[in-house]
Amino acid sequence: MKDTFYTLKSPHLVIIGGGFAGLELVKQLKNKDIRVTLLDKNNYHTFQPLLYQVASGGLGPDGIAYPLRKIVSTCQNVIFRMAKVLEVQTTENIVKTSIGDISYDYLVIATGSTTNFFGNEQLEKASMQLKTVPDALDLRSDILQEFEKAVHTLTTDEKKRILNFVVVGGGPTGVETAGALAEMKKNVLPADYKELDPECMQVHLIESAPRVLATFSEQSSAKALKFLHELGVKVQLNVQVKNYDGHVVQLSTGEELQTETVVWSAGVKGISIPGMDPASLGRGNRYKVNASNLVDGYTNIFAVGDVAAMTTDAKYPNGHPMVAPVGVQQARLFSKNIFRIIKGEKTEEFRYFDKGSMATVGRHKAVLEAFGFRMQGYIAWLAWMLLHLMLLVGFRNRMVVFINWMWNYLSYQRAIRIITRPFVRHEQ
Amino acid sequence: MKDTFYTLKSPHLVIIGGGFAGLELVKQLKNKDIRVTLLDKNNYHTFQPLLYQVASGGLGPDGIAYPLRKIVSTCQNVIFRMAKVLEVQTTENIVKTSIGDISYDYLVIATGSTTNFFGNEQLEKASMQLKTVPDALDLRSDILQEFEKAVHTLTTDEKKRILNFVVVGGGPTGVETAGALAEMKKNVLPADYKELDPECMQVHLIESAPRVLATFSEQSSAKALKFLHELGVKVQLNVQVKNYDGHVVQLSTGEELQTETVVWSAGVKGISIPGMDPASLGRGNRYKVNASNLVDGYTNIFAVGDVAAMTTDAKYPNGHPMVAPVGVQQARLFSKNIFRIIKGEKTEEFRYFDKGSMATVGRHKAVLEAFGFRMQGYIAWLAWMLLHLMLLVGFRNRMVVFINWMWNYLSYQRAIRIITRPFVRHEQ
Repeated sequence: MKDTFYTLKSPHLVIIGGGFAGLELVKQLKNKDIRVTLLDKNNYHTFQPLLYQVASGGLGPDGIAYPLRKIVSTCQNVIFRMAKVLEVQTTENIVKTSIGDISYDYLVIATGSTTNFFGNEQLEKASMQLKTVPDALDLRSDILQEFEKAVHTLTTDEKKRILNFVVVGGGPTGVETAGALAEMKKNVLPADYKELDPECMQVHLIESAPRVLATFSEQSSAKALKFLHELGVKVQLNVQVKNYDGHVVQLSTGEELQTETVVWSAGVKGISIPGMDPASLGRGNRYKVNASNLVDGYTNIFAVGDVAAMTTDAKYPNGHPMVAPVGVQQARLFSKNIFRIIKGEKTEEFRYFDKGSMATVGRHKAVLEAFGFRMQGYIAWLAWMLLHLMLLVGFRNRMVVFINWMWNYLSYQRAIRIITRPFVRHEQ
Repeated sequence: MKDTFYTLKSPHLVIIGGGFAGLELVKQLKNKDIRVTLLDKNNYHTFQPLLYQVASGGLGPDGIAYPLRKIVSTCQNVIFRMAKVLEVQTTENIVKTSIGDISYDYLVIATGSTTNFFGNEQLEKASMQLKTVPDALDLRSDILQEFEKAVHTLTTDEKKRILNFVVVGGGPTGVETAGALAEMKKNVLPADYKELDPECMQVHLIESAPRVLATFSEQSSAKALKFLHELGVKVQLNVQVKNYDGHVVQLSTGEELQTETVVWSAGVKGISIPGMDPASLGRGNRYKVNASNLVDGYTNIFAVGDVAAMTTDAKYPNGHPMVAPVGVQQARLFSKNIFRIIKGEKTEEFRYFDKGSMATVGRHKAVLEAFGFRMQGYIAWLAWMLLHLMLLVGFRNRMVVFINWMWNYLSYQRAIRIITRPFVRHEQ
């Protein structure tokens, strides 16, 4: 029994969300003089950077999902509740959830971000996305079912339409997804679908900016584009997707692409919580926070990670990039600041330490930049794998991912090509 | 391209079902002078004996599901189609499927078996079962969600009701599932759910016969019962489940068990195909076949495995047991007989070679009998694991299962305790 949690008289901190930021905060507050309740609608942490590998059959969900209880179980002062947050009542300091009311002394919103379809409901309904484990399993089923459908389709035109995959957004997720699809064309189709001409499959990547990986250096962007071309991905730059109805993608150039599968990775927005003052929300649906992550207009509600927009840093006037390292670093600082706040002391201000960025395009193909240093190709690809293995939570998950990667590398296969979820999208 | 399949003038054999029997038949007919089409509604083969380990979080689905295309891809004369069979038109030799009509010269029904609820629709709707990968994932989500629900439930009585698990049927599946649940009580609850008193969880096993593992020897049954008792499973023998409405299990003794989770493994029946003469179906919804697996009343339609009831063997007057080895052996013989049939020669008659049976109850606890030899406990448990590793399809799956078993063994954990499917059963 968690005696400590219930007998402690320490203040009660409620964290909403077990993503990178929420999880780091739990780890930092482990066995400290504070009571912590972690809330998440899932019972696991999702390692989002590798979702595209689940979608392409290279990894199973158990490699990248980690049970939150496993982490919490070692903390005497932390409890976990699987619950959906319905509303926060800020005047009474209560979070209303699917399992009842939870009162707090301090609240940390670490809800992260969701896909942004910019209000286009038709697009949202017809597109796939890659933010959750179910998203990735749905996309895996979709891709494999398109392959199966193409096999028994009679005309080549129809096969081409079915095997047309359109990825929207040239950020790391879009680039990595397009690369993984191109690898499937190269290795999975010829091995498993001998009746299909692999050339019937086409992968498109549509980016509205003048280059892919727009947050990287020009040099890295150019190299990533070269890698994509080598893999046969048809990249269109300076082009926007106007709409998708489940059959036809309309581009800003007037061109139309016939496809059954659009992966939308062209934008994210913060996940806000009902009950909060709408004035506290800024651009991208992110909470406006001060340099210590305090939400505008509140004294005991904080936001960290993707859902927080801190504009005090001159280098990031619109808030920090919505990436894991920002959330982790904010959580680390907040784990110290909270005790200063409790004692009424002055808090420390956040400074983002940008360690760099990396993205992988395919086998032996990655770009990496860190501390002014740039690398592309084989060594960058090895570094990408090593770093992601280190960042994964838990020894077992690292081992499972490592073994799967070795297997995929040596066999040129994507071993987990099983359709386990019913596929209903096109039946709606 | 599979040139051979389309250019061959050989007769066309259609196999419905990629289970143990269907898969063995494909392997045996590999690159022989016959064209084969394998149909299955899934794109993978399911290793059913380990489904209960997926349900209890010890294995992921990728360890026990194997892509059917991976096997078919090495056979020049075999193609695979993922399709639902709607009907067979026996006079025209056509199988009508969800992807169109497929004509055959010879048809093999290898559809296997499904859970038998003996016509009780309420029971069927409210119970969980363990015949498919989605079944296992549903049960895993159910178990873990009951755990989560119990954590935030206030009264002990309510916790006990939520953590009451009832397994119906004392065959291998029922015994193994009850054992796995008891192991979760012993190891997962104390580690991950420190707020819960593990004693609130109770596992019941209800069997209508006088002993569990009724097809085994009396000695093995007694030992399995002892193992179940050691694990704390409440076994009731000579007791039938009359009904279950989603809340209360009614037993033939008049006793009622409050529970949210009933796993029904108290019966199976063959999966028949619309369009076949109903007179060809016998007891247990299995096709009546002769000693060469020819279905009663037909000249070119055969049934193998669970769905076939061959009554020519004096030792098995009601048909062979519905277990994998029967299907595999029938498939092996049929792969020779089909060429005799094509040539108009006399076919060989099937003789079942019973190599024995085994079941595992929990850590270090299994029973095994083979060739009059009986073994129980630690060595039987090691033998059980070794044999199942050997029987798994594909090196990768063996490796994945082996590593997960080692991990579970050393850590006393069930690593894959993630809820990935929405849980709707109680919301209906």
